[in-house]
Amino acid sequence: MRRFATDRGKQLLLLSSRRLLPTTPSPSPATAAGLNYAFPFSTSSSSPVPMASPVTVDTINPKVIKCQYAVRGEIVIHAQRLQEDLQANPGSHPFDEILYCNIGNPQSLGQQPITFFREVLALCDYPGLLDRDETHALFSADAVERAWKILDGIKGLREAIAAGIAARDGYPANADDIFLTDGASPAVHMMMQLLLRSEKDGILCPIPQYPLYSASITLHGGSLVPYYLDEATGWGLELSEVKKQLEDARSKGITVRALVVINPGNPTGQVLSEDNQREIVEFCKREGLVLLADEVYQENVYVDNKKFHSFKKVSRSMGYGDKDIALVSFQSVSKGYYGECGKRGGYMEVTGFIPEVREQIYKIASVNLCSNISGQILASLVMNPPKETDESFQSYIEERDGILSSLARRAKTLEDAFNSLEGVTCNKAEGAMYLFPRLHLPQKAIEAAKAVNAAPDAFYARRLLDATGIVVVPGSGFGQVPGTWHIRCTILPQEDKIPAIVSRLKTFHEAFMAEFCD
Amino acid sequence: MRRFATDRGKQLLLLSSRRLLPTTPSPSPATAAGLNYAFPFSTSSSSPVPMASPVTVDTINPKVIKCQYAVRGEIVIHAQRLQEDLQANPGSHPFDEILYCNIGNPQSLGQQPITFFREVLALCDYPGLLDRDETHALFSADAVERAWKILDGIKGLREAIAAGIAARDGYPANADDIFLTDGASPAVHMMMQLLLRSEKDGILCPIPQYPLYSASITLHGGSLVPYYLDEATGWGLELSEVKKQLEDARSKGITVRALVVINPGNPTGQVLSEDNQREIVEFCKREGLVLLADEVYQENVYVDNKKFHSFKKVSRSMGYGDKDIALVSFQSVSKGYYGECGKRGGYMEVTGFIPEVREQIYKIASVNLCSNISGQILASLVMNPPKETDESFQSYIEERDGILSSLARRAKTLEDAFNSLEGVTCNKAEGAMYLFPRLHLPQKAIEAAKAVNAAPDAFYARRLLDATGIVVVPGSGFGQVPGTWHIRCTILPQEDKIPAIVSRLKTFHEAFMAEFCD
Repeated sequence: MRRFATDRGKQLLLLSSRRLLPTTPSPSPATAAGLNYAFPFSTSSSSPVPMASPVTVDTINPKVIKCQYAVRGEIVIHAQRLQEDLQANPGSHPFDEILYCNIGNPQSLGQQPITFFREVLALCDYPGLLDRDETHALFSADAVERAWKILDGIKGLREAIAAGIAARDGYPANADDIFLTDGASPAVHMMMQLLLRSEKDGILCPIPQYPLYSASITLHGGSLVPYYLDEATGWGLELSEVKKQLEDARSKGITVRALVVINPGNPTGQVLSEDNQREIVEFCKREGLVLLADEVYQENVYVDNKKFHSFKKVSRSMGYGDKDIALVSFQSVSKGYYGECGKRGGYMEVTGFIPEVREQIYKIASVNLCSNISGQILASLVMNPPKETDESFQSYIEERDGILSSLARRAKTLEDAFNSLEGVTCNKAEGAMYLFPRLHLPQKAIEAAKAVNAAPDAFYARRLLDATGIVVVPGSGFGQVPGTWHIRCTILPQEDKIPAIVSRLKTFHEAFMAEFCD
Repeated sequence: MRRFATDRGKQLLLLSSRRLLPTTPSPSPATAAGLNYAFPFSTSSSSPVPMASPVTVDTINPKVIKCQYAVRGEIVIHAQRLQEDLQANPGSHPFDEILYCNIGNPQSLGQQPITFFREVLALCDYPGLLDRDETHALFSADAVERAWKILDGIKGLREAIAAGIAARDGYPANADDIFLTDGASPAVHMMMQLLLRSEKDGILCPIPQYPLYSASITLHGGSLVPYYLDEATGWGLELSEVKKQLEDARSKGITVRALVVINPGNPTGQVLSEDNQREIVEFCKREGLVLLADEVYQENVYVDNKKFHSFKKVSRSMGYGDKDIALVSFQSVSKGYYGECGKRGGYMEVTGFIPEVREQIYKIASVNLCSNISGQILASLVMNPPKETDESFQSYIEERDGILSSLARRAKTLEDAFNSLEGVTCNKAEGAMYLFPRLHLPQKAIEAAKAVNAAPDAFYARRLLDATGIVVVPGSGFGQVPGTWHIRCTILPQEDKIPAIVSRLKTFHEAFMAEFCD
C-alpha cells in the first residue's frame, strides 16, 4: 500500500501557505528575556502602503499583532523554502530531505493510523458499505458493529467518552460535562474567552509552555502570569514558585483566574507525581483558581516509575467534588499513540462550575457550532478502544504497543544523543512527545546571534536546519529562564531515521562548537 | 439501508447539552427594538453563589454575557424537552414528532449525502481499502481515482478549490488566497478578530442577519452597524440605506471597517442582482471598506430569473483587481445541495490585502491550527464534483438535481402556505434555505406576549411549537424593523412531511388568530 497520507494534504497546505509570506522576512530583534520569541512576525510595516488599502498593520487588532506563535514560525517557513529548493534542485543542500522534528504530528512523519479507528470512520462516512456482502471481507466485525451503534445513535458519543473517563479514573464521569471540540485548541480558546475580561485578569502558565497558551491569552486580552518549571529537578513543578508568582501578580493588581498545568509536559516531557498533583489541587482550591489541566498526552508515558493520573481522579481521590474545585481537563485525538492530528477531535471535561456559568460556556460553544463529526467519533473511539472479546483486540493491542514501545526507544536514543553533545544537557522525556535539551552556548555563538538579531537558540536552530535539514523549535518560542537556551525536538521521526538524525546532529554540533569555541 | 445518521450524533449532543441548562430558565424581557432578542441568556445570576465558586457570571468576560445566539436558543431547548417528553410518554402532546425547521441542516432532516463525496471520504479515511479487490465492487472508479490523487498529494486541496473557483467565475483564482476552515463560522470569527480593535470599530451588517455576525462582533468587542433590507422589495439591499447608516455611524465616531453581505440571503432568501452587486463593490472601493461576502448558499438558487454571481467575479468583471478592493468570500460544505453540516468544511478566499496583513491572517490561522482533513477534502470535492466523463457523473447529477428541484418545490409550497394565512406575508425564497414570513399580529397577541415577557414573534413561535411540534426561530433573533415580527422557517423538511406541516400550521394559525382577534 502506498504511504498513508491524510496528513499530506495538511503539509501541502502549510507548504503553499508560506507563499503568503514576504520572500525575505526580516527577523525582529529578540531579547534574552523569558517570554520573548526568536522570530516574531514583524510588528510594523516598513513597506509603503498603497493608498487604497483599507486594512494595514496599523489598523488591525493590536492583540493580533502582539500574539506570537513560534511552533509554526520562521524556522518552519525557512524549512519549507529549503524543501522546495530540494525538489527543484536535488543535491543543492547537504541533505536530501527535511526532517520535521518541530511539531507533535506523528502521522506526518510516517506513523500509520490505528486500523480499527479508521475502519469505523470509513464506515460512518459511507454507511452504504454496511449493507454489502463485500464489506465483511474488508472490515473487522467489531468495526462494523461499532459503526452501526454510532449511526443508530444507540450510544451517544459523549456518553461513550464519559464511560471511558470513568473506566480510566475509577470515578464517575457525566456526559453532560463533556464539550466536544475540534482538538484541544478551540477548548483552550473558549476557556480563555470566558475567563479573561481585561489585562488585569491573569492566567498562571508554566514556563516553558506550549505557545497556544501565551497566544490565546494575548488574543483574548489577558495577562500571562509565568511560573518556572525547575530544569534541575527534571522540570519539576515547585508549588513554592507558583505561590510566589501568584502573590507577585496579585501585588501588581492582577486578578489571577486560573492555573494551567500541562501533564505530561510540553515541551518538557515531565510526568507529575501524584503527590505533586495533590498539592496543586489543594492550592487551586485554597486560592480560588480554576485548574486548567492540559492532559492531551495522557497516553504518552514512557517510563516505568511514572503513571498518568488525571487531575479529576486525583481531586476525587482527595474527597473533592463538583462543589470544591473548578476543573477543566483538555483531551485531543492528535496525541496519544494514535496521533490523529488531521482529524481535529477532542473534548474538554468541565466540572465544578455553577450552572449559570456552564450556560455561558454552552453559549460560546453554540456560537462556534459543533465540532466535526469524524473528530467526535474518533474522540469516542480513542476513549473506548476495542475490548478483549472483540475481533480487533489483538491487532489493536499490537499496533498500540508497537507505537508506544518504539516511541520510548526513540526518546531514550535521542536523549542519550543530546546528552553526549558538548555543552548540552537533556532531561528524560518521561512522557509527551518532546525533548527540551539545554544548550550551553559559547559566548562567541551568542554574539554571532546578536549580530544577526536572532535569539541564540534560534540562531542555533537555523544553523542546524541549514546544515542537516533537521527542523526543531527554538526554546525562546516556549519561554525559558532568562539567559538559558533550549531547543524542542520531537521524538517522532520513524525509528529507521533516528541513527541518521543522531549522526547528523553530532557532526553539526561538533562543527558549531568548534566554529564558536571561546 | 438504515437512515444515514452522522448527524444524529450531533442531535444527541445538542440533546444532552441542554441538560446543562437550568430546568426552568426564565426568559428576560424582550423589547421591540431591532436588535433585541427574544430569549437572551440571563445576564446576571439571581441564584445564591456558593462561596467556593471561583467563577461567577459577574466575574466572566462581559462580552460573553452580552453575546446572543438565538438560532440555538430557548425555543430549541424547549423543543428538546418536548422531544424527551414524547419519548418518555408517547401521546402526551398533540403531535408525535418534533419538526426542526430552525436550522439549515438538511441531513438532520433526512437528506441523503451525495454518494461520490462520501465514497471519497471513506477511502481517504481508510486507504487500506484502495489495495483490495472487493473495493471495486463497492466504490465507483472515479471515487477510487480521486482518493488516490488526494492521498498522493498530486493535486493539492487548495489548488483544487482555486481551480473550482476559476471555473465558476471565469477569472483566475490563486491557491495562496484560500484559507481552509472548519466551515464558514471560524473564518468569520478570524476576520472579526483581525478587524476589530475596540467598540469604536464597526461592521455594517444587514438586518435581518444571521446571528453569527452579531455574536462574533460582540465577542470581539466591536460595534454592529445595521443596515435594513427592504422587505417591500423582496428584501432588497438599497445602497442609499447602507450609505445613510455608514454616515450615521461615522458621525458617532465609529470607524466602519467592513460591509457584510449575505448572498443568497439568510434569513431572507433573496438573491442579489448583478447590478446591485456592482453598486456594492463600487461603494466598498470608494469608502475603503472590506467586503465580507457570505456566499455559503451559492449553490442554492431556486428561481429561473436569478443566478448566483460571486463578488469576486463581479469585481473582476468591473476591472477591479487585488489592488482595488479587499474582498473575503466565505464558503462552507454545510450548505449547497450537499448540506454536509457535520463535516465542518469550508474556506475563505482572501484577496486585496497587503502582504503584511495577510501574514497576520496566516498567524491567526496557525494559532487555530489546521481545519479537519475530512472537511478540507470535502471542500475540494464540492468545488470539483464529478465531470461528464466520470463514472459517477450521471448518478451525481441525478442526486444533485433531485435535491435542488425538491428544495425549489418545498420553498414554493411553504411560501404559498404562509401567504395563505391571515395576517401573514411572505417573500419568495429565491435562494438559501429559509422563508422569513412577516406576522401581522393582533394587538391582543402582542399584549399576551408582553404579559409573559416575550417578544411577540417568540411568543408565536413558542405557541406554534407547543401546538404542532414545529420549531422555527423568532425573527427577533435576526433583527427586524422595530414593530415588525417574523419567523424564520427552513424549507428543509423532506417532501413527504410538507403537507402535514402546512396543514398543522394552518390549523394552529387560525386558532391563534381566533384566540387573540382584536
